[in-house]
Amino acid sequence: MEGEALSALCTPALVVDIDKVKRNAERMIKRCQNLGVQLRPHMKTHKTLECADIMTGGSRRCIVVSTLAEACFYADHGFDDILYAYSLPFDKVERCAALSERLDLFQVLLDHPHALEQLKKRPLRDGRLWHIWLKLDCGNGRAGVLHSEPEALRLAQAIAETEGVELTGVYAHCGNTYNCRGVEKIQAVAQETTDLTLQFMEKLKAVGITCKSSIGSTPSCSHPVKDMAQLSEVHPGNYGFYDVQQSVIGSCSLEDVAVRVLTRVIGHCPHRNQLLIDCGWSGLSLDGAGKLPTGYAVIEGHPNLKLLSMTQEHGRVEPISGLLDYSKYPLGSLLTLIPYHSCATAVMHPVYHVHSEGRLLGKWTPTRGW
Amino acid sequence: MEGEALSALCTPALVVDIDKVKRNAERMIKRCQNLGVQLRPHMKTHKTLECADIMTGGSRRCIVVSTLAEACFYADHGFDDILYAYSLPFDKVERCAALSERLDLFQVLLDHPHALEQLKKRPLRDGRLWHIWLKLDCGNGRAGVLHSEPEALRLAQAIAETEGVELTGVYAHCGNTYNCRGVEKIQAVAQETTDLTLQFMEKLKAVGITCKSSIGSTPSCSHPVKDMAQLSEVHPGNYGFYDVQQSVIGSCSLEDVAVRVLTRVIGHCPHRNQLLIDCGWSGLSLDGAGKLPTGYAVIEGHPNLKLLSMTQEHGRVEPISGLLDYSKYPLGSLLTLIPYHSCATAVMHPVYHVHSEGRLLGKWTPTRGW
Repeated sequence: MEGEALSALCTPALVVDIDKVKRNAERMIKRCQNLGVQLRPHMKTHKTLECADIMTGGSRRCIVVSTLAEACFYADHGFDDILYAYSLPFDKVERCAALSERLDLFQVLLDHPHALEQLKKRPLRDGRLWHIWLKLDCGNGRAGVLHSEPEALRLAQAIAETEGVELTGVYAHCGNTYNCRGVEKIQAVAQETTDLTLQFMEKLKAVGITCKSSIGSTPSCSHPVKDMAQLSEVHPGNYGFYDVQQSVIGSCSLEDVAVRVLTRVIGHCPHRNQLLIDCGWSGLSLDGAGKLPTGYAVIEGHPNLKLLSMTQEHGRVEPISGLLDYSKYPLGSLLTLIPYHSCATAVMHPVYHVHSEGRLLGKWTPTRGW
Repeated sequence: MEGEALSALCTPALVVDIDKVKRNAERMIKRCQNLGVQLRPHMKTHKTLECADIMTGGSRRCIVVSTLAEACFYADHGFDDILYAYSLPFDKVERCAALSERLDLFQVLLDHPHALEQLKKRPLRDGRLWHIWLKLDCGNGRAGVLHSEPEALRLAQAIAETEGVELTGVYAHCGNTYNCRGVEKIQAVAQETTDLTLQFMEKLKAVGITCKSSIGSTPSCSHPVKDMAQLSEVHPGNYGFYDVQQSVIGSCSLEDVAVRVLTRVIGHCPHRNQLLIDCGWSGLSLDGAGKLPTGYAVIEGHPNLKLLSMTQEHGRVEPISGLLDYSKYPLGSLLTLIPYHSCATAVMHPVYHVHSEGRLLGKWTPTRGW
């Protein structure tokens, strides 16, 4: 199919505009260079080797992953300096140990003293150290020890003082930027997360501990505040692809979104003033329900169309207002969906079709599972 | 891992109770035998060879699929008499032709004269016929030509009269049973769909056309009405696994649900009165949002717990009332999620772990894509 037009694809199909991915990646690399912080891109959105190469500028070093399946996949393909940024899962300690003993630098994350106990029970061979990031919750409200709790400092000290382990850094995810609308609000959250993280680093310093610091999310790293220069690293991930959600937040413009789901019209339903398309939730995900006036996605070039509902392999499309002119949408014709959340859409596809200016270049195959 | 307990699995993991699958399958086989209709089980929920073997009683014949990827997967593994029950996608005509020329009996479905035109343009080799089911909409409101429209009869006649094709049957999906609560309401929809389909068969007979008829959905086929005996076939699918949704509809009891997602506690958040679990939407799907008092799933054995929200790899669990007793949920401990919609949950998993009475028997690997 190489060299063919996108219309040669059977649908539904996830298509990736490689030029946009490269541009998004280069901008982030440049932004981090200007800021003077190390970029550690997150792989969870795409989970492919090819996109990881683009996001690491070809170094195959310094990445974050969300699953151990990703960690193994990248390790198997020559990547190193991998941070498994997930509150240490007790069932996976042995697999983490194997990666720690095999790679130059495999890093884990924890937010509870019990997790530290698990690592102490499994010392690494050959005098290797467990490289540990402490996960701090700076207002995101998901994982992490609360920055304001005395336990946070105590846990950092316990890690620093434990034999066989090293406190590599302090890690905060500012996922609360996803509630923001506009650059100003994104930057307020970025500033707050940075401030709280740096204040925590000061507390560590006061007890004689120095280590790295990292915050991240695509909104904050797309519009960094200058105090982020005082951090060691940032770890955004979604920005390789971006999506409608990021454009609504204000991380990017809709133009920057590098992924689409191609779909075809497979039904005319004039008695309901609807079209059927061959993309259901198995090709798009249900993410974004109720968030957009255009339904579960933006239908490119057709601002009056709404993706109203989906079942496994069908989508129902209706006009936002007026009657559908079916002559514009013959059976078999293509429509292009811009996903609300590219992480959720990508995970539905066993293969991504990569193109440049609408000409197919090849396929990327993501890893899956845990 | 064979012979080990489920607790040996890394989480999140989809686990399948093979005894329940077999019981669900046997009951459906028996029900159809008693009714005197041919069971044509739908593969879309599980998409595995092993479950297909159980649902076809080992015959590897007479199945329905929702994607051409499924059709090819089953054809490659010795299955035949496959109905691709999806309004003929114009981009896949050539792939359908290849299957029609390769299998004893590959069947397609359509609901528009333009689709018939597509098939006429691609006559099959060796004097083979396209086997065509006409998709009828009997009130479901998705695909299909409306039963009440004169076009329905005209299209059936056009198929019957066209050279190189055969009108194999009339197919209606009573997905509107999913809005029902309780057996009585399910049976009212089953009765209506049956009546409308049989009335249409009478209209066909009146113009000299005879062919098969089929209706289906797991609710209607779990509680068939006796007039369904006048149909040729039924085509339910979800019943192999069932799920919370089916138990809410009244198709089954919660006891009959054969699948679970195993997850572990990975965080304690007393300041929010929440637990974190290692199952996010990538392990469960977002299906069922807002439908259950217990959130996105039922947490087995813990009726006071609610799966409040999920991100890609995290779930937030809180009590429906009162304060969490964290000593009951130590970090690393297992929780068991009963999925709201097993079709949506299964699709998130590259492998299913099969067990009998909690002892692992092996893995089933589903097919994916389109």
